[in-house]
Amino acid sequence: MSKSKLVVTPVQACSAAPLVREPLTEPHATELASVFKALSDPVRLRLLSAIASRESQEACVCDLSVGIELTQPTISHHLKVLREAGLINSERRASWVYYRVVPAALQRLSEVLLVESGTTQGVNT
Amino acid sequence: MSKSKLVVTPVQACSAAPLVREPLTEPHATELASVFKALSDPVRLRLLSAIASRESQEACVCDLSVGIELTQPTISHHLKVLREAGLINSERRASWVYYRVVPAALQRLSEVLLVESGTTQGVNT
Repeated sequence: MSKSKLVVTPVQACSAAPLVREPLTEPHATELASVFKALSDPVRLRLLSAIASRESQEACVCDLSVGIELTQPTISHHLKVLREAGLINSERRASWVYYRVVPAALQRLSEVLLVESGTTQGVNT
Repeated sequence: MSKSKLVVTPVQACSAAPLVREPLTEPHATELASVFKALSDPVRLRLLSAIASRESQEACVCDLSVGIELTQPTISHHLKVLREAGLINSERRASWVYYRVVPAALQRLSEVLLVESGTTQGVNT
């Protein structure tokens, strides 16, 4: 599968049960893996973090291209992957598209990876 | 980069500051991306969950090959990727290698994705 054909499933579709609680089903694992794939690129992680950590909690490509040494089309491509994964959403205003993180999507992924109390006992790290 | 040459950085090396708090640095994003890459495969997610959710919190390839329709060498390959990412560790006992999840590694990833209180306000999901 080429990078341009990366198929991702919006993370909202995934349940948030921690993976340490019960075995993931095959469909759930497939959904989750596609979202983690969207996060498996350093540029996309930096873009996600750059948007989320701005005081206004939103950014356009014009803002993001200041801190990252990539062309605007490349940044737009990565933003599209994040949007298709349900991790950010976008809104057009005049000439620019503004991106915001979807907190519920991040929260759900965070919960999937959550280690419940008691699980850490007796395990060497 | 071929799949067999996947280079991953143990997640213990990453700081746990939520990515919504401040922009990720390039080295931190690179480290995190490599761990998310280890999670971007449905089989690896299912193996991780299968190990973590067992009552004994450990499993050998012999246990894992019962629930997943893959050969033991393929399962062993995926377990190696998870181990190199610092998500599981292993211990040889007699003829078998037993795998356990590293809760601190999952916990750290969960914290990186954590959305702090107040961040969800005013954002459409």
